Parts: sequence; C-alpha cells; structure tokens
Amino acid sequence: EQGPILLDGKATSAKIREELKEKCEALKAKDASMVPGLAFVLVGERTDSATYVRMKKKACEEVGIQTYGHELEESLSEDKLVNLVKELNANRDVHGILVQLPLPSHINERRVLDEISVDKDVDGLHPYNIGSLVLRGCEPRFVACTPLGCMELLRRYEIPIRGKRAVVIGRSNIVGLPMSQLLLKEDATVTCCHSKTEDIASYVKEADILVAAIGKAEFVKGSWLKPGAVVIDVGMNRVDDETRQRGYRLVGDVEQQECRKHASAITPVPGGVGPMTIAMLLNNTVSSAMRIYSV
Amino acid sequence: EQGPILLDGKATSAKIREELKEKCEALKAKDASMVPGLAFVLVGERTDSATYVRMKKKACEEVGIQTYGHELEESLSEDKLVNLVKELNANRDVHGILVQLPLPSHINERRVLDEISVDKDVDGLHPYNIGSLVLRGCEPRFVACTPLGCMELLRRYEIPIRGKRAVVIGRSNIVGLPMSQLLLKEDATVTCCHSKTEDIASYVKEADILVAAIGKAEFVKGSWLKPGAVVIDVGMNRVDDETRQRGYRLVGDVEQQECRKHASAITPVPGGVGPMTIAMLLNNTVSSAMRIYSV
Ligand SMILES: NC(=O)C1=CN([C@@H]2O[C@H](COP(=O)(O)OP(=O)(O)OC[C@H]3O[C@@H](n4cnc5c(N)ncnc54)[C@H](OP(=O)(O)O)[C@@H]3O)[C@@H](O)[C@H]2O)C=CC1
Ligand SMILES: NC(=O)C1=CN([C@@H]2O[C@H](COP(=O)(O)OP(=O)(O)OC[C@H]3O[C@@H](n4cnc5c(N)ncnc54)[C@H](OP(=O)(O)O)[C@@H]3O)[C@@H](O)[C@H]2O)C=CC1
Repeated sequence: EQGPILLDGKATSAKIREELKEKCEALKAKDASMVPGLAFVLVGERTDSATYVRMKKKACEEVGIQTYGHELEESLSEDKLVNLVKELNANRDVHGILVQLPLPSHINERRVLDEISVDKDVDGLHPYNIGSLVLRGCEPRFVACTPLGCMELLRRYEIPIRGKRAVVIGRSNIVGLPMSQLLLKEDATVTCCHSKTEDIASYVKEADILVAAIGKAEFVKGSWLKPGAVVIDVGMNRVDDETRQRGYRLVGDVEQQECRKHASAITPVPGGVGPMTIAMLLNNTVSSAMRIYSV
Repeated sequence: EQGPILLDGKATSAKIREELKEKCEALKAKDASMVPGLAFVLVGERTDSATYVRMKKKACEEVGIQTYGHELEESLSEDKLVNLVKELNANRDVHGILVQLPLPSHINERRVLDEISVDKDVDGLHPYNIGSLVLRGCEPRFVACTPLGCMELLRRYEIPIRGKRAVVIGRSNIVGLPMSQLLLKEDATVTCCHSKTEDIASYVKEADILVAAIGKAEFVKGSWLKPGAVVIDVGMNRVDDETRQRGYRLVGDVEQQECRKHASAITPVPGGVGPMTIAMLLNNTVSSAMRIYSV
C-alpha cells in the first residue's frame, strides 16, 4: 500500500535557507555594510522561550543574518520594554524585531507588539499588518511565520488550493487566524473551527485541506478524515515518553499514523511545520533588509 | 402556517436613532459646543452615490449630528483629496469622515482610505481598524456599518450565535469579510464562501445562520436552506419592474418568499439590513464624538 506524500518541512526549509544564504551573500558582495539584522527580545527565564530563541538565533547566523540579543529580567517594567522597542525601531542595523511571547503577566503584550514598527514586524502581529493581510487590495509587509510556512509548503508541493474546502482548527493570532485568511486569499472556501465548535469531526470529514493548530496531542482522529485530504499539523505537544532520553517526545495535533492511512499528503511532526516557521522568520528578515536597503 | 420572525431593520433602526438622538441632546445639555460631526466626501456625479450621501445626511440631521458636505469634481486629483482628508483629520468639529465609494478610477482608493485617521474612520475600513477587529485581545475603534448592523439586529432579536454554524457568502472589505470576523468573535463556526466556492448549496444546507452579501438578485434558493435557519440578506439589487413608478424594485440576494418557507427568522428587503447600516453610521459617529470629548 502506498502512503501519503510527506510534506517534508525539514528538507524544504534547508532549501529555503540555502536560497536565503545566497541572497545575504549577494547583498554583502554589493556593499559590505549591507547585512540583514534581527533583534531578539526575551524577557524572563522560561526555558522553552530561551530554547526557541537560541534555535532561531543559530538559524540566523547560518544564513548570514546578524542577530542582536536582548535578554532582560522578568521584573522589567512595561515602559522600559516599550523604550527598548522604540530604540530598535530607530536602529538602522535592525530590520526585524522579534519579541518572544509570552511576556510576563505584568506586561501588556498588546501594547508592546503595537509599538513595533510596521516595517520591522517580522512576526506579523501588528494590527496594521494583520489588517493589510485581511483586506483585499492591500499587501501586508509581513505575515506570521507559521502560517506563511504552511502556505510555502503547500506551494512548493504544488497542492491546489483554489475552490477547495479548507478547515482550520484554531484561531490564534499567530497561527489559526492568519492561516484562515491566507487560504481564503488563495480562494479556498474556509471554515474556522475552535473550542466552541460543536461536532468538529463533521467539519473535518468535509475538508480537502485540514490545518490543525489546537495545541492538543492527537486531537484529530484518522477516522475523521476525508479520503485524500491534505493534512497540515501545526501542533507541537510534549508527551511523556520514558524510552526517550529527554523523557518526552513531540506529537502533533493529529493522530499521525492513523491519518497517514487516509491522507494524500501530510506534514510529519517533528520535521513538518516547525522548520518552515524558522525558515519564514529568516525569509521575512532578509526581505525586510532588502526593502529597507531598497535592493 | 406560521411564517418566520421578520428581523425588522426599519423599526429597530428607528429605535436606535431615538436612542442616539437622546445621547446628542444630553451632550448638548452638558455643553452647547459638544455636537457630533460627520464629514461626507463625495467625488464625481454618480447618482447612486449622491442618493446614498443625501439619505445619510438627512438621517444625521434628524438625530442631531452636524454634517459637513464636500462635493468635489470628478477630475479632482488624488493629492488634493488626500489633503482634504488630512484637513478633516485635524478639524476638531469632525468626529467621523465618510469617503463615499467608489472613487473615480484615477484615484487610488486604498491610499485615500489609509489617510483617514484611525480615530475618525467611521466606516471601519482602515487596516488598523480591521486588524484590531480580527486580532484577539484588540478592540477596533470602528467596525464597518453594514456588518455591525447585522450583528446588532441579531443581538436585539436575541438570536444565539455561539457554537452555531454560520455561512457568509461574500468576502468584500466592507461587508462579507468583517461579517465573518464578527460572527467568529461571537464563537460561531464560520465558513467563508465566495465566487470560487464550488457547490455553494451544500454549505448553505448546513447553515444555522446564513449571511448573503453577494450582489446577485435572488442568488440563494429557498430550497437550499436548512429548516429553521436564520437568514440575513444584505443584498440590494435593482430589478426592472414596469409596475413600479421608478421602473425597478429592490430585491435581495436570497429568494425572499421561498426562504420564508424554511427560515426561522429573516431580514426583509427593503427594510432589513439597509436601515441598520445607516443607524450604525450614526452610532459610530456619536460614539466617536463621545470618545473625543471624553464623555
Ligand atoms: N510548529 C510551529 O512552529 C508552531 C507550532 N505551534 C503549535 O501549534 C499549536 C497551536 O498553537 P497556538 O495557535 O499558538 O495555540 P493557542 O492556544 O493560542 O490556540 C489554540 C486554538 O485551538 C483552539 N482549541 C483549543 N481546544 C480546542 C478544542 N478542544 N477543539 C477545537 N479547538 C480547540 C482554541 O480555540 P479558542 O479560540 O476557542 O480558545 C484556539 O483557537 C500548539 O500545539 C503549538 O505548540 C505554535 C506556533 C508555532
Ligand atoms: N444593505 C446595505 O446597507 C448594503 C448592501 N450592500 C449590498 O450587499 C451586496 C454585496 O455588497 P458588497 O460586499 O459591497 O459587494 P462586492 O461586489 O464587493 O462583493 C461581492 C462578494 O460576493 C461574491 N460573489 C460574487 N458572485 C458570487 C457567486 N456567483 N457565488 C458566490 N459568491 C459570489 C464575491 O466573491 P469574490 O470575492 O470571489 O469576487 C464577493 O466576495 C450587494 O447587493 C450590495 O448592494 C452593500 C453594502 C451595504
């Protein structure tokens, strides 16, 4: 029996990073002072956040993006954080600003994100950028990296979208919501499901393209799928596993093995959406630098 | 046989206008200089646009909103129009700016709309306002009047939304798109359909709440409806009719009589969504004035 196409985010991401590396080299060859720069702002000591930032920084350095790290104490005041963002907005070497979420609870996340210059908002979370994504006739400067990575994967595997029934489970600012809008812009008929949706299986059964961005391990059952569906599994959930050295393994928001019996294409976890997210962060930063340098 | 509840936009709008009139009077009683003001910008000679502006102005005057009319020649340059918008942004008597669409083809509509101050964008078409509508944790200053009017009608008739299957046909910036987002914010499971959707009837058949914003007379057939569906018909289409003095009559985007056989509630056309749109324009202007006056 033939299994589904595996939408290989790891390999695709490697290819994209190769392309970006060449772009960075071409920039530098033109003018040695032209180096894309990404500023990281990390507040507090969450180990998961620190890990994400470390991974992203490493990926930047590999393609030739200069990183600027700002690791700040948990107790930092909101005003001080806003001032840092303003400095980074004004800093001409910085082309992208990434404030690692979540922020400590005493800080108003929205106020900080709104301060990031629309021109350096590589995470695509500024209302102006989301509004420009949603409105017809507008082009956002930046789109959130995870949904952008999902779209890029669909594009590179030439999965048709127009006219298809797409179901997106999850409506977070950073994944589900922009994902729905991107699929709609590509002319899918899009249904947005969430925790208040009744009988989710009935929607999944109709989906030609299913995007699961829920944050619940193996939430989507293989038996729910429409035969031949394309499955994008955004979930990254830790499940205890004593057979692993780390004590856990990563599983997605869909039953991976059961879904493979019905899907025509599926993203593995890990190695699917995760690496694409990082590739899109690099891509957004390099594009931003090229825009600001007017190249 | 009992028919569906008619969602009476005319009566509801009259009630809302009465409420707004009282608000305007209360403002004036506090300080005679506090008068909500709405500026109308009309470029060119389209008779339909001129009619809409006239109707809206009249409605403003009835509740006590001061109107500022700017009727400009078709040949007006984009820069001059942008300058007018900037003046209106700075004018302290003006709390809302309505640029009647469509603009002549030599003018970049988007550039003009983007110039309107986010604080006076009573049509809710600025990317920042749409972004704030869409993002969780944000509140838009203004939401587009037609979808806001549909929601207000649902609210006043106590139609439950949470967990319901909503289908919105149409995804325009001014109607379909914000409508989908408003229903999603109220926890409906929302499907966005449009001209590239295949087999629209199959979606309509599942809808507990159907919003038709297509611009095609009687597009939705009564036989498609799920029994008991709530139908919001946004369409306003002119159909030739020699029995009428004007030579036409207005019909919606759904087969009104056939739909009444299956729906549990439905907006008539005319007298449904149309009057609510105007009421919401007045509402947005009065709210804006109260915000700016800090009342
Ligand atoms: N691969 C990558 O690079 C990335 C992976 N992720 C992963 O993607 C997943 C989603 O992330 P994120 O969007 O940030 O998560 P959020 O927690 O912000 O959002 C989860 C969404 O899922 C919905 N949901 C929760 N429970 C249910 C349920 N029982 N039925 C239906 N819907 C439900 C929620 O609905 P409601 O809105 O009603 O609360 C919400 O919209 C996580 O596993 C995360 O780790 C995230 C970012 C990047
Ligand atoms: N009552 C009121 O106050 C108001 C009423 N209206 C009325 O509402 C209607 C819609 O207005 P508006 O949103 O501005 O119109 P637009 O023309 O801007 O948008 C129409 C939408 O309908 C979709 N559509 C067109 N044909 C089909 C089809 N065959 N099948 C499915 N979808 C289709 C289009 O899809 P696609 O995106 O793929 O092109 C588009 O998204 C009109 O009748 C208008 O007169 C509008 C504003 C106020």
